[in-house]
Amino acid sequence: MTPSDYAVSGVDIDAGNRAIQLMQAAVKSTYGPEVLGGIGSFGGLYDASALKLMKSPVLVASTDGVGTKVKIAAQARRYRSVGQDIVNHCINDILVQGARPLFFLDYFATSKLDPQIVAEVVTGISQACREAACALIGGETAEMPGVYAQGEFDIAGTMIGVLERESILPRPDICSGDVLLGIRSSGPHTNGYSLIRRIFEGLSLETIFPELGISLADALLAPHRSYLQVLQSTISDMQSPIKALAHLTGGGFLENIPRVLPGTVDAVIDTKAWTIPALFKLIQERGEVARDEMYRVFNMGIGMVVIVDKQDVGRLQKAIPEPTFIIGKLVEGKHKVILE
Amino acid sequence: MTPSDYAVSGVDIDAGNRAIQLMQAAVKSTYGPEVLGGIGSFGGLYDASALKLMKSPVLVASTDGVGTKVKIAAQARRYRSVGQDIVNHCINDILVQGARPLFFLDYFATSKLDPQIVAEVVTGISQACREAACALIGGETAEMPGVYAQGEFDIAGTMIGVLERESILPRPDICSGDVLLGIRSSGPHTNGYSLIRRIFEGLSLETIFPELGISLADALLAPHRSYLQVLQSTISDMQSPIKALAHLTGGGFLENIPRVLPGTVDAVIDTKAWTIPALFKLIQERGEVARDEMYRVFNMGIGMVVIVDKQDVGRLQKAIPEPTFIIGKLVEGKHKVILE
Repeated sequence: MTPSDYAVSGVDIDAGNRAIQLMQAAVKSTYGPEVLGGIGSFGGLYDASALKLMKSPVLVASTDGVGTKVKIAAQARRYRSVGQDIVNHCINDILVQGARPLFFLDYFATSKLDPQIVAEVVTGISQACREAACALIGGETAEMPGVYAQGEFDIAGTMIGVLERESILPRPDICSGDVLLGIRSSGPHTNGYSLIRRIFEGLSLETIFPELGISLADALLAPHRSYLQVLQSTISDMQSPIKALAHLTGGGFLENIPRVLPGTVDAVIDTKAWTIPALFKLIQERGEVARDEMYRVFNMGIGMVVIVDKQDVGRLQKAIPEPTFIIGKLVEGKHKVILE
Repeated sequence: MTPSDYAVSGVDIDAGNRAIQLMQAAVKSTYGPEVLGGIGSFGGLYDASALKLMKSPVLVASTDGVGTKVKIAAQARRYRSVGQDIVNHCINDILVQGARPLFFLDYFATSKLDPQIVAEVVTGISQACREAACALIGGETAEMPGVYAQGEFDIAGTMIGVLERESILPRPDICSGDVLLGIRSSGPHTNGYSLIRRIFEGLSLETIFPELGISLADALLAPHRSYLQVLQSTISDMQSPIKALAHLTGGGFLENIPRVLPGTVDAVIDTKAWTIPALFKLIQERGEVARDEMYRVFNMGIGMVVIVDKQDVGRLQKAIPEPTFIIGKLVEGKHKVILE
């Protein structure tokens, strides 16, 4: 049986069939009863009758890529983690609106189809989907010689989630005095990789810097973590104290936090409030990158920022099942981020 | 205002901002009241409360690319039609399951971001979305030097649609004796372009073959047509005589028609039933392509096949507001396509 809408296009039919064979089990492992399996269907089918039980269902969708992190993966010949990256990136992007994932579709394209590589990527995608109880209901794998440089590939994905209209984040009551809580990232996630590649150019990915204690490949390919597991019980609670979430992707602190702020406040970040992971210090030193630029490009160890009334900080910290950091506060201002 | 989830990633921030400026109006022209606009949101929001009025709503999703047609577009420096291609391809893929489109998200990635090119692509996408009353609620534009060959780009898209569970196509009553109706394609749509490029290699895209009467660029970049307009009123009718639809994409007649057939029938195609467009004849002659291979790679002038009980043929032909062709029938068999 072919998974619902899993298609492979390109010049080499045998490689395509082999890729589909290899990824079938992984794709199907993500299916719940909502996936209505048509064999070799043109589109993936998802039973949405649960939405009828909601007061005012809103669908949330996000498409993303993982940027030039794919080049590091291709160079290291490790493909599973970028599969996890693309799913978790998209999960976080809809999570910050307050939504939980329903289903995912991926796009993988390359210069020359290698069934083993496709299978590795889709295994990573499926693993991240399973962890989020999200179905991988479709995808497209394309072989495009001449469009992609030799040995290179790209990956994109689309996540569809749902939430109640009254629970959409950010809430309108964000104001001066609110506190910013930070939750740890697992690495640079999927941002800053053009700069990273420039800084480590010419070095083997097997290089072990003493301050990292692991190879560059391990440090740079750490999968983008999902914040669903640590935030979903709080978010789905009607009494949730969370006023807003900011996913620190491309644009880091300086561009992502303002996306959820009203125009009348500034966010003041206490950069001493958490320990900057060694990898970011190494990047800053080797690349001689200015401090502000680091906070514009990277997450600096904080992948998700939660905005909360200062009275609710203790309650929220207890509700999140891992250490969090009070990284700043909102003050009267003009929609800026101030690093202190 | 930035469209809902419209993000641009890459190294050149100014080019990214300019691209967003250029495409804003086009993106917003696709918005209906269902799009809940968050400025610079992380995810696109779509009010799905209409689904509560349905008996048993099923969401249908499809991700696709346009294959190496993008190389012809890049060579001809025409970018709007591939935007239409990706939307219409996805519309047709969910239409064959019986669904109507709700919203779309696109992914555009390239070696070096040119704001004008992005704007052209998104203008094409928006135009096709508007024609389908479908909202473009999100997208990602990425600049990835080194992943894409110089001057090249790729485009992918994801369409989300909806239908009643009892209206899912194909219906289970497909049987021997049923008739295959064909509806015209507008060209090769988005399939066979690797072969096409090989056959016309070395020729200027401005070449005018007498039998075409238009330039190669015009012939090869004709947008993939959408079948929504000619089929939607029939499909949304509970008394619809349509048993199944097959979208003739990669794999042509030989691989797409069996996707909707039960294992106990063959489809016999009368290849004399319609006039093969001149472009396909030219491709076959210049490329010395075997007949069966042509019907495996190309749509040969028929982009959508409708399966219908023979008693309903007249009624269905009247309901479709353009000429259709009786191109074949189903007979007892073993899931094959037979060309006569």
